[in-house]
Amino acid sequence: MAGKLGWGTFVSQADKKSENGHEQGSKSLSKPEPEATIPSAPPQSTVSDYEKKKANFIVRTFWTFVMIAGFFAALFAGHIYVVLIITTIQIVSFKEVIAIANVGSRARDLRFTKSLNWYWLATTMYFLYGESVVYYFRHIILVDKVLQPLSTHHRFISFCIYIFGFVFFVGALKPGHLRFQFSQFAWTHMALFLINIQAHFIMNNIFEGLIWFFLPAALVITNDIFAYICGITFGRTQLIKLSPKKTVEGFVGAWIMTMVFGVGLTHVLLSSNYFICPATNLATSILQDIHCEPNPVFIPRTYTSPEFFFLPPGYTLSVTVAPMQIHALVWATFASLIAPFGGFFASGLKRSFKIKDFGDSIPGHGGMTDRMDCQFIMGMFAFLYYQTFIAVRNYNPGAVLDMMVTGLSIDDQAHVLKSMLHIWARDGVMPPAVS
Amino acid sequence: MAGKLGWGTFVSQADKKSENGHEQGSKSLSKPEPEATIPSAPPQSTVSDYEKKKANFIVRTFWTFVMIAGFFAALFAGHIYVVLIITTIQIVSFKEVIAIANVGSRARDLRFTKSLNWYWLATTMYFLYGESVVYYFRHIILVDKVLQPLSTHHRFISFCIYIFGFVFFVGALKPGHLRFQFSQFAWTHMALFLINIQAHFIMNNIFEGLIWFFLPAALVITNDIFAYICGITFGRTQLIKLSPKKTVEGFVGAWIMTMVFGVGLTHVLLSSNYFICPATNLATSILQDIHCEPNPVFIPRTYTSPEFFFLPPGYTLSVTVAPMQIHALVWATFASLIAPFGGFFASGLKRSFKIKDFGDSIPGHGGMTDRMDCQFIMGMFAFLYYQTFIAVRNYNPGAVLDMMVTGLSIDDQAHVLKSMLHIWARDGVMPPAVS
Repeated sequence: MAGKLGWGTFVSQADKKSENGHEQGSKSLSKPEPEATIPSAPPQSTVSDYEKKKANFIVRTFWTFVMIAGFFAALFAGHIYVVLIITTIQIVSFKEVIAIANVGSRARDLRFTKSLNWYWLATTMYFLYGESVVYYFRHIILVDKVLQPLSTHHRFISFCIYIFGFVFFVGALKPGHLRFQFSQFAWTHMALFLINIQAHFIMNNIFEGLIWFFLPAALVITNDIFAYICGITFGRTQLIKLSPKKTVEGFVGAWIMTMVFGVGLTHVLLSSNYFICPATNLATSILQDIHCEPNPVFIPRTYTSPEFFFLPPGYTLSVTVAPMQIHALVWATFASLIAPFGGFFASGLKRSFKIKDFGDSIPGHGGMTDRMDCQFIMGMFAFLYYQTFIAVRNYNPGAVLDMMVTGLSIDDQAHVLKSMLHIWARDGVMPPAVS
Repeated sequence: MAGKLGWGTFVSQADKKSENGHEQGSKSLSKPEPEATIPSAPPQSTVSDYEKKKANFIVRTFWTFVMIAGFFAALFAGHIYVVLIITTIQIVSFKEVIAIANVGSRARDLRFTKSLNWYWLATTMYFLYGESVVYYFRHIILVDKVLQPLSTHHRFISFCIYIFGFVFFVGALKPGHLRFQFSQFAWTHMALFLINIQAHFIMNNIFEGLIWFFLPAALVITNDIFAYICGITFGRTQLIKLSPKKTVEGFVGAWIMTMVFGVGLTHVLLSSNYFICPATNLATSILQDIHCEPNPVFIPRTYTSPEFFFLPPGYTLSVTVAPMQIHALVWATFASLIAPFGGFFASGLKRSFKIKDFGDSIPGHGGMTDRMDCQFIMGMFAFLYYQTFIAVRNYNPGAVLDMMVTGLSIDDQAHVLKSMLHIWARDGVMPPAVS
């Protein structure tokens, strides 16, 4: 996650430079807009402005290196440290997003509104973290007599905790403040959905193997850097109304470069068991020797083209890559074309509240959310893509048979057999053992 | 679901009467409030008021019977009809909740805001209905070559559909309207969460067996009727600030009566296979003869007390009930003490928008949401309670088949089949379907 921090730091510098670099080129595109009252420096900088900027640049650079160092330290120290970083980031982001809408609750004498927001966060995190722990560490939990009911009743317990907050919320509704209270409720739920639920999937990626966390995070960072570089080099055409500084050329150029980078980074990562093996316990670190059966996507294959007309007869083209490097092209495409919309969404949100940053959590950088906006959506994409197209679900035939014998009625057993025969017939397969 | 309709009809009449009945008693409790500008009839009714009320009463009563008849017709016609009713109800409720916040989108020239709300609904329903169909009917879907990828990639496809809408939303952000557009976004997500996701669990209850749908719906209706009866009979002490007409006495009295009713209704329902058996196909109706291994909670047991000091030595108390009747006490408690907060929530929401009803979907009754507010939360409770404490983990044949198709090699599949045949031969069992 700190990879995202590291990204953040790069990006913000890039953004900052691009603010200066693009100002001249894009001025004609940006017109004064009623809501766009974000305070900005006057065009001609005075000396004291220069001094301020210099001081800010030093603070910013210092914290950039702190974050990069912290991120890589956590990455190599082990899964549990990366999880802790993600947890911190999502709590800080939630705090920032909640804060911008909670203006005036003290004046309204509704102090508990704030406490209630934290209660919703705690409930959501209890539910989500519990889900992950139950899923990945069930073999540990089920053995413990105290933890077992927490595991088997996890969803019901989470529901009860939520309902307790719901009843409290309704009981605390105050005529005269209803609009405010209900918009707080809706706002908090949106924040939980967009920040915490998506961050939860990033956590699952960590447990599946650090590459599933590191690769998407790195792709988003890389894309941002290249969008800046390509933008100032070739940028001419405005991309969306909301951000006059984004250009089509920067968008497309960064896409191509991110794909190249993604294929290269994947090549590097897939030789490290520390990155490709799932977490079997939380004490793993890079110092330990980890072994696992690698997922087939990490094993290079040779892809051969058909005979093309432009080649001499009998010649074909062939390339040897790991299938994951091909998947990396898709991931890079998502990181380049879709994930930036997470950032545009955040920009729009800031603008609608007339603020420049979500907060001041990182000295010289602004809020945590400003650094993370594209990462949440990317993490969720990575999770679903991994689960759908990459995860190998190796079941043991003995386990399947055990489920059938102990858990299905005779009729259901027969039903499964018949369906299996249908599927074979449909696919034109007839295993020798059966015929 | 129409049970909820039926309920709604009772309740609204009850509410209406109680408005008149309680007015005198509770006047001292309710004081003028800035937001409480709901139009209400003047204390002294004129003749034309009386005529209006009479006309309204006739319309209301007519539609009450239409809804009750429709509900029971669907209930006996089969699961698929009940599912259709739930679907209609959640779409109408969503429409109503969205409409109250979407005022002014036409004036702002943001016509697509409305379309986008419907797009979110369609996405959510595709995702949720797909989840249910994949879970309960996987054994049918996996056999079909066209449907199979829709099943195995369901979550990823849903994510892509959602992301498409998200990108569109961001692309359509318009400076000057950002606050409006973002609050629409948050509002719609809250509505989806509170209405459609909760209604989805009601649908799952239907597939698990009609009792899991009918019992919670009936408990909420009953509670509402008894809250009215007990309220006008003993009501004195105000319950919450928001609803001056609710009394502690009505609340507690209804709780006791709902428990009695719940135990009785369970006793009646558990003798019907149509209610207690899960849906194995969607063509089931009450006319068919359905068989299943009943869940152990439906089989009466004798509970014997220890020897109490007040009994002659050697004597004990014993009672024979189905465990489900004991569970029904818990469900009745939830329906009485917690579910009403769903209604209070809806009341507060209406009041904050200065409206009396969510809409006019049901002639004489107001909006669908007014009739359903307590049902959603009850349905979700019933689902989680059932899954946590009652469901017998009979493996689902679809899940086993899915494991075989996606997780085993062809040889291993054949191995499982052969072993199954061996086990049948050993046990002298030959399912008719196979031979």
